[in-house]
Amino acid sequence: ACFHRSSSSSSSTPLDALFPRHEDFSKRHIGPNGQEQSAMLEYLGLESLEELTKKAVPGDILLDRDLDLPEAIGEYALLKELEDIGSKNEMYRTFMGMGYHGTLTPTTIIRNIFENPGWTTQYTPYQAELAQGRLESLLNYQTMIADLMGLDVSNASLLDEATAAAEAMTLCQRHTKRKKFFIDMRCHPQTISVVKTRASVLNIEVVEGDWRELDLSEGDFSGVLVQYPDTDGHVSDFSDLITKAKESKTLVVGCTDLLAVTVLRPPGDIGMDIAIGTNQRFGVPLGYGGPHAGFFACRQNFLRTIPGRVVGVTRDSGGRPAYRLALQTREQHIRRDKATSNICTAQALLANMSAMYAIYHGPHGLKEIGQRIHNGALILAEGIKQAGHALHSSKFFDTVKFLPTTGQQHIRDKAIAHKINLRYFQDGTVAIALDETVGHQDLTDLLNIVDSPATPEEIAQQMGPNPQSKLLAPESIHRRLSSYLTHPVFNSHHSETQLVRYMKQLENKDLSLVHSMISLGSCTMKLNSTTEMMPCTWKEFSSLHPFVPREQALGYHHLLDELEQLLCEITGYDEICFQPNSGAQGEYAGLRTIMAYHQSTGEEQRNMCLIPVSAHGTNPASAQMAGMKITPINVDKSGAVDMAHMAKMAEKFKDTLACFMITYPSTHGVFDKDIRELCDMVHHYGGQVYLDGANMNAQVGICRPGDFGSDVSHLNLHKTFCIPHGGGGPGAGPIGVKAHLRPFLPSHPVVPPLGTFGPGTASFGSVSSAPFGSSSILPISWGYIKMMGPKGLRHASQVAILNANYMSRRLTGHFNTLFTNEAGFCAHEFIMDVRPFKKTANIEATDVAKRLQDYGFHAPTLSWPVTGTLMIEPTESEDKDELDRLCDALIAIRKEIQDIEEGRMDRDVNPLKMAPHIQLDIINSKWNRPYTMEMGAFPASFVTPATKFWPTVARIDDAYGDQNLMCTCPPMSSYSSDENGVEERAAV
Amino acid sequence: ACFHRSSSSSSSTPLDALFPRHEDFSKRHIGPNGQEQSAMLEYLGLESLEELTKKAVPGDILLDRDLDLPEAIGEYALLKELEDIGSKNEMYRTFMGMGYHGTLTPTTIIRNIFENPGWTTQYTPYQAELAQGRLESLLNYQTMIADLMGLDVSNASLLDEATAAAEAMTLCQRHTKRKKFFIDMRCHPQTISVVKTRASVLNIEVVEGDWRELDLSEGDFSGVLVQYPDTDGHVSDFSDLITKAKESKTLVVGCTDLLAVTVLRPPGDIGMDIAIGTNQRFGVPLGYGGPHAGFFACRQNFLRTIPGRVVGVTRDSGGRPAYRLALQTREQHIRRDKATSNICTAQALLANMSAMYAIYHGPHGLKEIGQRIHNGALILAEGIKQAGHALHSSKFFDTVKFLPTTGQQHIRDKAIAHKINLRYFQDGTVAIALDETVGHQDLTDLLNIVDSPATPEEIAQQMGPNPQSKLLAPESIHRRLSSYLTHPVFNSHHSETQLVRYMKQLENKDLSLVHSMISLGSCTMKLNSTTEMMPCTWKEFSSLHPFVPREQALGYHHLLDELEQLLCEITGYDEICFQPNSGAQGEYAGLRTIMAYHQSTGEEQRNMCLIPVSAHGTNPASAQMAGMKITPINVDKSGAVDMAHMAKMAEKFKDTLACFMITYPSTHGVFDKDIRELCDMVHHYGGQVYLDGANMNAQVGICRPGDFGSDVSHLNLHKTFCIPHGGGGPGAGPIGVKAHLRPFLPSHPVVPPLGTFGPGTASFGSVSSAPFGSSSILPISWGYIKMMGPKGLRHASQVAILNANYMSRRLTGHFNTLFTNEAGFCAHEFIMDVRPFKKTANIEATDVAKRLQDYGFHAPTLSWPVTGTLMIEPTESEDKDELDRLCDALIAIRKEIQDIEEGRMDRDVNPLKMAPHIQLDIINSKWNRPYTMEMGAFPASFVTPATKFWPTVARIDDAYGDQNLMCTCPPMSSYSSDENGVEERAAV
Ligand SMILES: Cc1ncc(COP(=O)(O)O)c(C=O)c1O
Ligand SMILES: Cc1ncc(COP(=O)(O)O)c(C=O)c1O
Ligand SMILES: O=C([O-])O
Repeated sequence: ACFHRSSSSSSSTPLDALFPRHEDFSKRHIGPNGQEQSAMLEYLGLESLEELTKKAVPGDILLDRDLDLPEAIGEYALLKELEDIGSKNEMYRTFMGMGYHGTLTPTTIIRNIFENPGWTTQYTPYQAELAQGRLESLLNYQTMIADLMGLDVSNASLLDEATAAAEAMTLCQRHTKRKKFFIDMRCHPQTISVVKTRASVLNIEVVEGDWRELDLSEGDFSGVLVQYPDTDGHVSDFSDLITKAKESKTLVVGCTDLLAVTVLRPPGDIGMDIAIGTNQRFGVPLGYGGPHAGFFACRQNFLRTIPGRVVGVTRDSGGRPAYRLALQTREQHIRRDKATSNICTAQALLANMSAMYAIYHGPHGLKEIGQRIHNGALILAEGIKQAGHALHSSKFFDTVKFLPTTGQQHIRDKAIAHKINLRYFQDGTVAIALDETVGHQDLTDLLNIVDSPATPEEIAQQMGPNPQSKLLAPESIHRRLSSYLTHPVFNSHHSETQLVRYMKQLENKDLSLVHSMISLGSCTMKLNSTTEMMPCTWKEFSSLHPFVPREQALGYHHLLDELEQLLCEITGYDEICFQPNSGAQGEYAGLRTIMAYHQSTGEEQRNMCLIPVSAHGTNPASAQMAGMKITPINVDKSGAVDMAHMAKMAEKFKDTLACFMITYPSTHGVFDKDIRELCDMVHHYGGQVYLDGANMNAQVGICRPGDFGSDVSHLNLHKTFCIPHGGGGPGAGPIGVKAHLRPFLPSHPVVPPLGTFGPGTASFGSVSSAPFGSSSILPISWGYIKMMGPKGLRHASQVAILNANYMSRRLTGHFNTLFTNEAGFCAHEFIMDVRPFKKTANIEATDVAKRLQDYGFHAPTLSWPVTGTLMIEPTESEDKDELDRLCDALIAIRKEIQDIEEGRMDRDVNPLKMAPHIQLDIINSKWNRPYTMEMGAFPASFVTPATKFWPTVARIDDAYGDQNLMCTCPPMSSYSSDENGVEERAAV
Repeated sequence: ACFHRSSSSSSSTPLDALFPRHEDFSKRHIGPNGQEQSAMLEYLGLESLEELTKKAVPGDILLDRDLDLPEAIGEYALLKELEDIGSKNEMYRTFMGMGYHGTLTPTTIIRNIFENPGWTTQYTPYQAELAQGRLESLLNYQTMIADLMGLDVSNASLLDEATAAAEAMTLCQRHTKRKKFFIDMRCHPQTISVVKTRASVLNIEVVEGDWRELDLSEGDFSGVLVQYPDTDGHVSDFSDLITKAKESKTLVVGCTDLLAVTVLRPPGDIGMDIAIGTNQRFGVPLGYGGPHAGFFACRQNFLRTIPGRVVGVTRDSGGRPAYRLALQTREQHIRRDKATSNICTAQALLANMSAMYAIYHGPHGLKEIGQRIHNGALILAEGIKQAGHALHSSKFFDTVKFLPTTGQQHIRDKAIAHKINLRYFQDGTVAIALDETVGHQDLTDLLNIVDSPATPEEIAQQMGPNPQSKLLAPESIHRRLSSYLTHPVFNSHHSETQLVRYMKQLENKDLSLVHSMISLGSCTMKLNSTTEMMPCTWKEFSSLHPFVPREQALGYHHLLDELEQLLCEITGYDEICFQPNSGAQGEYAGLRTIMAYHQSTGEEQRNMCLIPVSAHGTNPASAQMAGMKITPINVDKSGAVDMAHMAKMAEKFKDTLACFMITYPSTHGVFDKDIRELCDMVHHYGGQVYLDGANMNAQVGICRPGDFGSDVSHLNLHKTFCIPHGGGGPGAGPIGVKAHLRPFLPSHPVVPPLGTFGPGTASFGSVSSAPFGSSSILPISWGYIKMMGPKGLRHASQVAILNANYMSRRLTGHFNTLFTNEAGFCAHEFIMDVRPFKKTANIEATDVAKRLQDYGFHAPTLSWPVTGTLMIEPTESEDKDELDRLCDALIAIRKEIQDIEEGRMDRDVNPLKMAPHIQLDIINSKWNRPYTMEMGAFPASFVTPATKFWPTVARIDDAYGDQNLMCTCPPMSSYSSDENGVEERAAV
């Protein structure tokens, strides 16, 4: 236990009675008030939440005490405390580079996207019809990346630069079927580390070296990864390498910089196959390491194997252009252990921010920024030369490395006196990386630090208007010749008024939590409160470079330490590692930790992972990436793990059993009663238990995985702990482990993370570019826990369970809840069966999902974990009225199905099959369907024009999109002059 | 001149050429880019903006140099500078009271309303059909105020508490026709000051005294104004006074506190007729004095004479309930000098914030807050007693006043050591006012300061759970018995999720600048940039009490001083006074300044104000309030002042001429060529020139009122200088004056404002509660000027003129522009004539205005200054595409009119008469109009479903509303079960 306030000391004093300490945040977070909770309990025939808890949760895992956490504090006290914490982070000017640069986020993007729940509380755009706004924005992002890279296609973001590099490596391997992969020693150290970590269990031999000395003639390398500007700032001419690679059919991956390629020849133009990097310096705050988006672009021929999500253009049922997530069939949730990557939650929000940054600046503005920074670097280099230091290279974009004649320490002392961070190499050299934020004073200070005899003004005077640049001289082969961002979207919204309108236009096309509940099962779409969100954009948290000396980040470390303690107490684990940037990444990290543990005990043969068939697809995908073998475990009719099968398999693989991986409460929405027995069984056979923490929202304060037998879990902080989903990321997937696994947790090549160094450490490697992952969003989860306190957290879990059971009960008689426990209760979510209607009415789950849009709702999780069903997770933040509204909608839909069943409505042309209904369909003089337009658009009394949410395209035609893959912004000519087919009709 | 950078020093250096200092904000602010500007100039047959300027503006007033302002700085440099300035404001804990209290604004209200352009960039809801969201919110506000006051009706806000008191006084006078008005000496000093200032020229005799000694038996008092809790914190029993007042038919006005009446008997319940006060402590940040909203509630029988705007419930053309501004016929812009008040811009945004605060807390939450604060005060008073000090009163709500035995200085020293501000009276007493922000530590510190022998904990222990309260004891006549906020809206949105959805729902009903241009003439709806807005919510600016010692507000004073210098240079005036909170308030202050000047020169007989008939209605209304006589001046056919008439009147009134009041460029959208001559003429006859600065947006950097003869102007900072309009306020209407008027500017009884004290001062009094008016929004205007720089500002004015002339020219042949100058050019706005269509097609200006909604546009200014016309002001922030879109819409509407003229369309049932079209009309199986539903909803190719803005009610029925005035939230039962008539139809 981490907090030693005895609960008696926290009981209310006379002063508290007269003068309460603060408002109760949990009342703001939890939707139903006391009265509503009572009404729902009564509906369920229960006396109290405690009774419900006992009915829903096995008695042998119940926590028999309050969580030992600090008492809840109020919202304003929290902000005050965070201000104090933030003030412990020191605001040095940091010119360390290494993939992280100062950036100027247009304030209107911060305010209207990053601080706007209309954008942040969207889910991944699985229901494309009510997500055309963010899909358009992600397509802009893809177009931006593909254009800037001079390549054909891009995905919609990866977690960071280093994992993008690792994904590129595995793509090369898949494509060439070769075992070796080369990585240049001048890539950033964190990239090298992640790539090597990934490779180490995948039967890939990574060769690290100097690309100039690389011999490809054997044809045994799948690919080579080189970087420019490299970690030393130098820009190499890779022509020879690329020629040789082509000859030997080796793929070339270029890691590059978005701003550099505004002026430098991009990967595609110099013949590379794949380009990767980070979008951070395109307006995404540093945030002590993240969240940012990793990008991945490649030639068209790799499109179908590109990792992660890709937005594509297809058409809707009316033949009108529409966006959607393309290539979904490749995703891990479908392909499971056949998946080529485990990435699920990515970095949608950050990708969108950077796309808006590009839209705001346009190609000319971006080029100006690139050119300006380069000019600054030229001035700086000239000063360094004049001071007599030895330049490392004359071909640099923004990063100038040099060997100081005066010694590194001298430079360092002067820099510290200026509160400036530079990069100091072991060999005595120093690098200075300039960025968009640099001003005249910065240049002056930097020249002073390097003892330049001349000021920036004097050097500029000497240089004249056309300074000599080795890279950008007209004759330079490095100079970019190709154009980019020529699409109108990048050339139309340069005034703030224009950009605001564009951002609002997109926002208003998309359904988010600001409109209605998003009952996606396994996604926990709960309140993301403003107070929790506020600190993320405070400069004390947002402007820190991840590699600053630890003593400048004491605020962050205070927060990390405290959040670790809080999460340990909540989960029953002994240590938390914050490096993973998503749930899937956490799975991978946790499984690798388990593998490292087995190795340490001399049991490296343990590599079998048992996974129930109902698991989320990322589980097998991660296990496969961790180098494990996978055996599926059956589930029984009640949805629980088939204990007999499990026992058989555990026994069968007793020598190789590495791990059992289970989601709890189960993906079927039930607290399996056998969980303790399962864990014991696994341990008995020498395995470890990985408990997928996606469903922690049913457990917090009620039971603790670390208590009932689990060894590792990831926590989706973007589910249970209130980080908003951002339309598909960011996320944070820290892992908690029991003490015996501690030594094996992820480490970092630049910044040793908490507790993974020192004696006894045997880390398996690293999983992210940044040491602590997406640090800047951690205050959200910290704030949530602090404001809820032990009682509030437990209460939230109980209400989450109450809400699910209430809905399930209300739907009884209309829809069948697939799984409950023996007492008839589900956990915090449940699966609603709609499979029978296929036969009775030709209606499928998708039809119900789309019809819900007409009622103003986002569909529940579709066809997962059971095909043909809908999984509903209401969360504790939805009040009874909202639950009732969704129930009413579902019941009304059931009646519509009955109309079909009983012949009152056509089996093919009916409100479900034609759903969703859009304005163009409805407002149509030629309406001739066998139901009224009113039934189409306003199917229930609570769907009123004043609040009607209109999907902007009709049902997406997936088949068409699959046949006609198009993943960058279509040329304007592809839209008919009447953009959405309106003009013609308006002329009627 | 204020800034002495020579313009040569600012020219570009070699370093600037290579490494530009910053991005150019003016490019973000000004809509059309260079290419578009060229295209528009070419369309007008002009070479350059300079040529346009010469054509549009009289040569004899052109400024022949650049403004002597600092060069433009970038957005990030601006924020940095503001941080530095902000850090000079010291964050003491302030418990001074006097109508200003710390408050905890729910963060979600800050973020989703105050920081959200969807709310801030709305205009006053003149077009009710696309403003139902804020109208509903303002109705909530009115209901909240009426309920809390125990009275029947409330208006939609006034500028502040003191002006609300002054308005109450004049209402009493109008109602009783009596000359005397009593004000209790224990009202706040700023209230007394403003009331006396107002009365002094209105033939009202204000008697200030102790209400206990008041003799009403003569029946010569129109009203009495008393306050509770009074400025000393004491709550009196006014029963006797009220009985006597009733007997003598004297009206009783109660100034009270919103939080106090959650537990104390409200004005209505104790028999008062009118209640006034401020909404500040309901979640509106202190902001060093504002903006906040003044409230005004009264009995039903005063409804038709209540000052300011009132939102009412009426029905739309389909008979469905709808909100609108009621009682508009009383407004000054209609009644001019017959108006009973000059208030125009009020405090809509702040009223809405406080209504949301009440919705979030609900009646129970508010009462808890009130009770808690009272308990805190009881504890504090007990400690004060135990320390041996003498309590001023035992009947206090939140403010405890006492005479320290140890002397005031002792208390003050201890308070300062704790960085706490208290209120110190001249007589040695001290007052401490508690507020919602007070926590245990604050109580501890306060008890320590007063030398209490006991801690809060000990006192609470002694008191037990039911402390003795003189006010709230069961038998107390002060205890509130009546319920309040029983309407569902105050009892349904207590979780953050619920409140966010409610706020978003309202936001999405309303058209604002985030959707499309708002071309309201005379309103200057330009970009309100995020960077300009950001500092307003920084605590360094938002949390300062207006009466803190000046040395704690050095940041504010730095900003005020600098903004004054900037505005002086822009206008050619010598001094700026920031006290007025709106344009109309500025007019009043300016006219009073002029009157005081005339008095000082012994010419108190000068009281005639000449005003062109085309003036804004606030001009004559303000002149009347300033005690002036008014003579209208004719305008000629060209829209300019009729010089002959003017000369005649000036001559006629040469002995009494006080002032000539003119808007320039004229309200007709033209730079009159005679302005210099006019000013000279006025001066010749001994008068002063008041130039209404509403149209400064056409002048900044081009000409300066102070140069061509004006003596005073108000500046609508909420027009030209980028403060957003907030749906009807806040505003800021500082006045600029020439040096000779300086001594007469407003002063303040608590905080002497800049330059109005000392020898030679002869201030006429004060006009606002706060010394510097709406201080916290001044950084917006300061930021705008700093980021635009002299060149950017001039450029903006030129583009504003270009945009207007471009639109006027594009509409030629379709609509007639009423007025241009001799060269055929308008200024920054123009009047479009639609009067002929009344005859030709039965179409009126309103029909065109409403039809524009179907095209996605807010109507231009309707029927002002010329009845039956539309006045269009595009502003510089709109790009050419947007101008073209509006032109296209207007031209398309002209074609629709032609269809009627030529008999192709019915004269009564046509798209104009039936506009706006709402979903309920369009999506209707029984559609039977002689045009298609598509024509109704999607009349142009650019009106697409993806971006369609739907008005939520059909055309407002004003006549019905006038006959059935209803100005608080209607009971839910008044809505049929199918709220908007949908259910019935959905069942079809
Ligand atoms: C059960 C389960 N496991 C793992 C994940 C993967 O998490 P992430 O999307 O953060 O990678 C999810 C995501 O929804 C999930 O539901
Ligand atoms: C010409 C003119 N004068 C004065 C005013 C009054 O300004 P305010 O609304 O700020 O009181 C206006 C407001 O629109 C105006 O247009
Ligand atoms: O995001 C999920 O795949 O659940």
